[in-house]
Amino acid sequence: MSARTFLTSGKKIVAIGRNFSEHAKELGNAVPKSPFFFLKPTSSYVANGGTIEIPSGCDVHHEIELAVVMGKETRDCPASQAMDNVAGFALAIDCTARNLQNEAKKKGLPWSAAKGFDTFTPISEFVPKDSFTDTNDIDLWLKVNDKFRQQGNTKDMIFKIPSLIEYVSSIMKLEAGDVLLTGTPSGVFSMKHGDVVTAGMKPGKAEKDIVNLKLNVADRKGLFKLSE
Amino acid sequence: MSARTFLTSGKKIVAIGRNFSEHAKELGNAVPKSPFFFLKPTSSYVANGGTIEIPSGCDVHHEIELAVVMGKETRDCPASQAMDNVAGFALAIDCTARNLQNEAKKKGLPWSAAKGFDTFTPISEFVPKDSFTDTNDIDLWLKVNDKFRQQGNTKDMIFKIPSLIEYVSSIMKLEAGDVLLTGTPSGVFSMKHGDVVTAGMKPGKAEKDIVNLKLNVADRKGLFKLSE
Ligand SMILES: [Mg+2]
Ligand SMILES: [Mg+2]
Ligand SMILES: [Mg+2]
Repeated sequence: MSARTFLTSGKKIVAIGRNFSEHAKELGNAVPKSPFFFLKPTSSYVANGGTIEIPSGCDVHHEIELAVVMGKETRDCPASQAMDNVAGFALAIDCTARNLQNEAKKKGLPWSAAKGFDTFTPISEFVPKDSFTDTNDIDLWLKVNDKFRQQGNTKDMIFKIPSLIEYVSSIMKLEAGDVLLTGTPSGVFSMKHGDVVTAGMKPGKAEKDIVNLKLNVADRKGLFKLSE
Repeated sequence: MSARTFLTSGKKIVAIGRNFSEHAKELGNAVPKSPFFFLKPTSSYVANGGTIEIPSGCDVHHEIELAVVMGKETRDCPASQAMDNVAGFALAIDCTARNLQNEAKKKGLPWSAAKGFDTFTPISEFVPKDSFTDTNDIDLWLKVNDKFRQQGNTKDMIFKIPSLIEYVSSIMKLEAGDVLLTGTPSGVFSMKHGDVVTAGMKPGKAEKDIVNLKLNVADRKGLFKLSE
């Protein structure tokens, strides 16, 4: 198992919630005192160039995020050693059916459906670890139809990557090819059929993006119906 | 990828909540009008004979459940065709940090940590599909230290296996080796260090179990601490 093939062979996606205070506030949530996470299924991956599908009745938001790709089994790993277990990075969009998530939050129910539809995790190719000298200074951006929606930098993360790995690995071990989504900056918003979503990521001091994403958006065909 | 090796090669565990009305009621929950599910990581599997680890400060409950092992990719699959995509079954325990889950429900946060600790999904060997002629008549039982805690039959499931597969596959595709946990009958309760948990499953009309589980319970060592 090579971490480079995470898109086809990886087993889990652990996604951190509310890790940028401006984003926590824009959805009316408190800024968390300790990290929390949810799981997304790897069946939700879609590669660059693919299509984000909007399920019937769903208000689907984009959340641009830095993805950390794990390189080896990681359990109970102190923050000080965490980066040794990272193989590299990727650029991901944590798509979210916001109306389903809001309903789940109200009822105290899991977020798994709201976050887990097929095509809800567009993700780039593998970016080797040495592409970034400072993981606390990475620029992320996302546009819909050529207009900026999200622009952030990992320096504004409330919990940095090493402490996220310590926290998650104190609960569930991470395996080679597992992906950690590190939270989104503010600017999340709806996508609709016909939209074109583009995104990019670069070291804060660099001129040019080192990886990009381009996705189409289309209505999902199939059996899903919104239930009351 | 063979479904028989799901324990090492499977990618996800989709777990149905509140699928037996007596169990919904014992935790003070409403009986659901449509199914709902959460994800457990496959890193939480522990094979028969292993040890369930109790994280510091956690009240961990056993939930005995029938596991359905998928045999092929299943997306938007009508209930009428769902059983064709099933490879077989297994007997599983959906271990749950009940205090963390209650806290998450109150705050509208994900259930992923409460359900996803390492060793929180003890699971049996693969049971071929033809071991059961009627999946709506399967007896399940669980004992702690030789006293019965749970005894149920799949005839009491609110949503039967084919409609669960239709529902889940209308949201996220299931892949060969993915596991569906179908919900627990009543009698869920705490386990503690030193307990021995045994469980079994058989066709309702059979005399003898066709598969059994035996697990030790021990306190987890590691970095996890309960946060406020
Ligand atoms: Mg997110
Ligand atoms: Mg998984
Ligand atoms: Mg359960």
